[in-house]
Amino acid sequence: MANSKFEYVKHFEQPDQLLPNTWVVVRLDGRGFTKFSAKHGFEKPNDRRALDLMNAAARGVVTELPDITIAYGVSDEYSFVFHKTCSLFERRSSKLVSTVVSTFTAYYVHLWSTYFPDSPLSPPLPSFDGRAVCYPSVQNLRDYLSWRQVDCHINNLYNTTFWALIQLGGMDATEAEKSLKGTYSADKHEILFSRFSVNYNNEPEILRKGSVIFRDYELVEPDSTQNIMLEVEKLAEPVQQSKTQAEKDKKKRAKAPIVVQHLDIIKDDFWDRRPWLLSNKPGKVPKET
Amino acid sequence: MANSKFEYVKHFEQPDQLLPNTWVVVRLDGRGFTKFSAKHGFEKPNDRRALDLMNAAARGVVTELPDITIAYGVSDEYSFVFHKTCSLFERRSSKLVSTVVSTFTAYYVHLWSTYFPDSPLSPPLPSFDGRAVCYPSVQNLRDYLSWRQVDCHINNLYNTTFWALIQLGGMDATEAEKSLKGTYSADKHEILFSRFSVNYNNEPEILRKGSVIFRDYELVEPDSTQNIMLEVEKLAEPVQQSKTQAEKDKKKRAKAPIVVQHLDIIKDDFWDRRPWLLSNKPGKVPKET
Amino acid sequence: MANSKFEYVKHFEQPDQLLPNTWVVVRLDGRGFTKFSAKHGFEKPNDRRALDLMNAAARGVVTELPDITIAYGVSDEYSFVFHKTCSLFERRSSKLVSTVVSTFTAYYVHLWSTYFPDSPLSPPLPSFDGRAVCYPSVQNLRDYLSWRQVDCHINNLYNTTFWALIQLGGMDATEAEKSLKGTYSADKHEILFSRFSVNYNNEPEILRKGSVIFRDYELVEPDSTQNIMLEVEKLAEPVQQSKTQAEKDKKKRAKAPIVVQHLDIIKDDFWDRRPWLLSNKPGKVPKET
Amino acid sequence: MANSKFEYVKHFEQPDQLLPNTWVVVRLDGRGFTKFSAKHGFEKPNDRRALDLMNAAARGVVTELPDITIAYGVSDEYSFVFHKTCSLFERRSSKLVSTVVSTFTAYYVHLWSTYFPDSPLSPPLPSFDGRAVCYPSVQNLRDYLSWRQVDCHINNLYNTTFWALIQLGGMDATEAEKSLKGTYSADKHEILFSRFSVNYNNEPEILRKGSVIFRDYELVEPDSTQNIMLEVEKLAEPVQQSKTQAEKDKKKRAKAPIVVQHLDIIKDDFWDRRPWLLSNKPGKVPKET
Repeated sequence: MANSKFEYVKHFEQPDQLLPNTWVVVRLDGRGFTKFSAKHGFEKPNDRRALDLMNAAARGVVTELPDITIAYGVSDEYSFVFHKTCSLFERRSSKLVSTVVSTFTAYYVHLWSTYFPDSPLSPPLPSFDGRAVCYPSVQNLRDYLSWRQVDCHINNLYNTTFWALIQLGGMDATEAEKSLKGTYSADKHEILFSRFSVNYNNEPEILRKGSVIFRDYELVEPDSTQNIMLEVEKLAEPVQQSKTQAEKDKKKRAKAPIVVQHLDIIKDDFWDRRPWLLSNKPGKVPKET
Repeated sequence: MANSKFEYVKHFEQPDQLLPNTWVVVRLDGRGFTKFSAKHGFEKPNDRRALDLMNAAARGVVTELPDITIAYGVSDEYSFVFHKTCSLFERRSSKLVSTVVSTFTAYYVHLWSTYFPDSPLSPPLPSFDGRAVCYPSVQNLRDYLSWRQVDCHINNLYNTTFWALIQLGGMDATEAEKSLKGTYSADKHEILFSRFSVNYNNEPEILRKGSVIFRDYELVEPDSTQNIMLEVEKLAEPVQQSKTQAEKDKKKRAKAPIVVQHLDIIKDDFWDRRPWLLSNKPGKVPKET
Repeated sequence: MANSKFEYVKHFEQPDQLLPNTWVVVRLDGRGFTKFSAKHGFEKPNDRRALDLMNAAARGVVTELPDITIAYGVSDEYSFVFHKTCSLFERRSSKLVSTVVSTFTAYYVHLWSTYFPDSPLSPPLPSFDGRAVCYPSVQNLRDYLSWRQVDCHINNLYNTTFWALIQLGGMDATEAEKSLKGTYSADKHEILFSRFSVNYNNEPEILRKGSVIFRDYELVEPDSTQNIMLEVEKLAEPVQQSKTQAEKDKKKRAKAPIVVQHLDIIKDDFWDRRPWLLSNKPGKVPKET
Repeated sequence: MANSKFEYVKHFEQPDQLLPNTWVVVRLDGRGFTKFSAKHGFEKPNDRRALDLMNAAARGVVTELPDITIAYGVSDEYSFVFHKTCSLFERRSSKLVSTVVSTFTAYYVHLWSTYFPDSPLSPPLPSFDGRAVCYPSVQNLRDYLSWRQVDCHINNLYNTTFWALIQLGGMDATEAEKSLKGTYSADKHEILFSRFSVNYNNEPEILRKGSVIFRDYELVEPDSTQNIMLEVEKLAEPVQQSKTQAEKDKKKRAKAPIVVQHLDIIKDDFWDRRPWLLSNKPGKVPKET
């Protein structure tokens, strides 16, 4: 029985390759997490177990997909950056998005009981949606990540103050919201400090800065004459590695520890000292001790 | 701290709404399932537990996303059909694909231990990739589903014969492959019957026909004068239901049992007797007994 | 000298095939025609020479591109409909749009002096922009064309009344605009009739209905039992004509006169009597007399 | 008469904005120019009038669309480069492509009689098709233009030799083709020189290098410390000019002569001495003398 009569339907599939030589960011978000977090009693304003689970799931994704150069997460969202030279799945958008989201979900559900041993999952299960966005330049990519980290800061400062007013100040949600309307950053710092003796700058970095995941190598002394950004922008399609070099790089990459850290990724320093993030050339793997 | 400096990066996200008034099929496939099934000792040519798990996960998806009108699965792939009038997520392709794939993955991992209690998951975890395809006409949609079911038949007949030659006939894989080269359907039936006394037509329907999932209502007597296909094609955007009617339909849909069956979906009969699949109007919910 | 070093740039071209089995409408609009029409002294509210030139240019497009089944124009816009089975340029959107727009522009400029012998063109020259839109069903396509024809009616009734108030009623533009604010269709008919003795229904059909261009065959008696729409919707990809039949159809099509008419294309009658427009099967070529 | 019933069809138009911060190249090609050039007796291997007409039409496009930073043409094709910060038509692909192609066609037809006074146009008229491609980096963009110029060289050397063999050597087309099969660049130079005393390097630059069109300012001494490429890559979305500056630039640009030249655009020198091409900042307008 031949299948030729129906095979024409294959031609309805439309190509969705992402533009070459651009940084691909796949961002995922929890679906209906307000309800989900209530169901499982997430602590407010932040549930450390929930954040650790997000990070563990994202670490699973970065481990399984070595084309990811860096990932950044906050709250119930995570962004994964594929290097601009990446050719995984021929850069097909739906394949990249669905693979990241599926792998993330698999780890999230699989590891759930480790982080929430007393609150077993039941339908509806946690799920995530995602999308892919292309960024042509290093500047655009860094601005994207800065945007997410500034958002983390703004939201976390707000939430910390909002829940302090409720949990420590005895307000209800409406009163707390009203108190914060029109306030600036400095005002919220002041409320936290003067009314609740909370120095926001002493809050855990995971909350203030979010989480960044990458393969770690020996830090580099920033060299004023080097210009990684220029080097990176020069990376165009035709510059292909030799197979031997690619093989060596793959091995190095496999040896590199994948770390979850809470750092400022807006300033140059983070990038200058980790040139491998943008160059895609593995650094020096630190000696185990 | 305002976020305006970086917010421009939002404009790099490109719209991906699917064409209105077309049937949207989201198909997912297991990633690296040859390796994965070996790791967990799936039986050959078919592992009933693995198929049941696929069906259970797909049932979870259909339950959580009532916009899905029908789903069809075989082996490690599943297709989910959104009705052509569906406006979920504004028909954004990446949202539809990632949500289906994520929900499916969540159920697959969550239910794993029910179906494989003796083979716990460990990294790398099972994952799936997906894509969305639009089909403009009922004919195109039915042809798509027929294509998948014919494929199921062709592959299952081949695999059944191939593994019979190995498991019952004592061949190795190379010999079995050689024996089957150039054979037609009838030849394989003959090999199975004459050499192994296997009547392929008595094989379980789940293997020969795959699995179809849908909301079930009372079957309808096909009426020669009615023409559901024409009715359906006339459904264009402007024909919007009243809110009351939509609400009633939603309730009816919520009451309808979601069934997993193994039927011929190529012939007209399947569709003629279940007009709700194409019309998106819920049928008569059968009385519970 | 090989060109291989640079050829990689070809891979940046992204595919843009339009979804198969959908009606493709390419609509073009005059760029900056308010200024252009002032420069060349177009009469208000309608310049018959300008409309005739638009129609002549569109006729050139329909003649050169036999895949176009019907075209509809009003003012400085024109819509060209490619049949849903059309595979010209592999349905690549940019090729279809640019070819239509380029051919139209060529005729417009080439024929300009025939219609405006006393107003020679000079830079900036007239130009047009265009886009392609897919419509999955006959209903959608007909609704698109109805939308344009209703728009033609609304705009022409407004403009006719507006310019009557100015040219015959001695108002200036601001006064005329004010007079018409909030008026309905019936009010405008009334103004025209009572103040200027103009019966709008006697205005030329080219103004009230716009222009429709198609290959003409013998009209068909609408048959209550036939249902062209159903037939058309059933046309799916796999139904391919034999080469002989395609060749015969091509010859018939080449013989058919291409007509410019001013008809109601909203009502069924227009379509019922010209089944070839939707079926893509040439009708009976009328005998020349 | 309201138009609301049909207006839903507008939602079928799908967005096609090109990725921000990328160089947009619109390339157009003559349709059926083999036939067209035969009809109008274009000289072989190159018709100077035809090339001059292409250049004049392209100059018209660059004049009407100041967002174009550079254009390059050879034979019956022309590429127009929009600067990566360009936001014309909100970067909608079909608008950009159709406007360029329409404007080009208008000039081509309008100017035809100036260049071919003895061969009036008649249907089918000359037309062009086009497409848009995005290039993320300056390197990609320059490689694209280099690709076209290398192609110009390869084709022109071949054609010059081919037609010399025919016109001067008395071969027919088949013999000439056979003679050239497998030859390298050097071989063709040798054939031209030894058999026909033609020094290819003395052929007109318009034929060997194609034509490049741009706004011209005072040439700049290439400065070893400056790095225009880096500067350009840093140009990201948020860096917006003040309105005053934009206005000044616009005036400067309007004063700059638009030149058609025949230069090597592969080497750095061309770009280093004309930094305005990549920076989009107008240079110093040369004094008129």
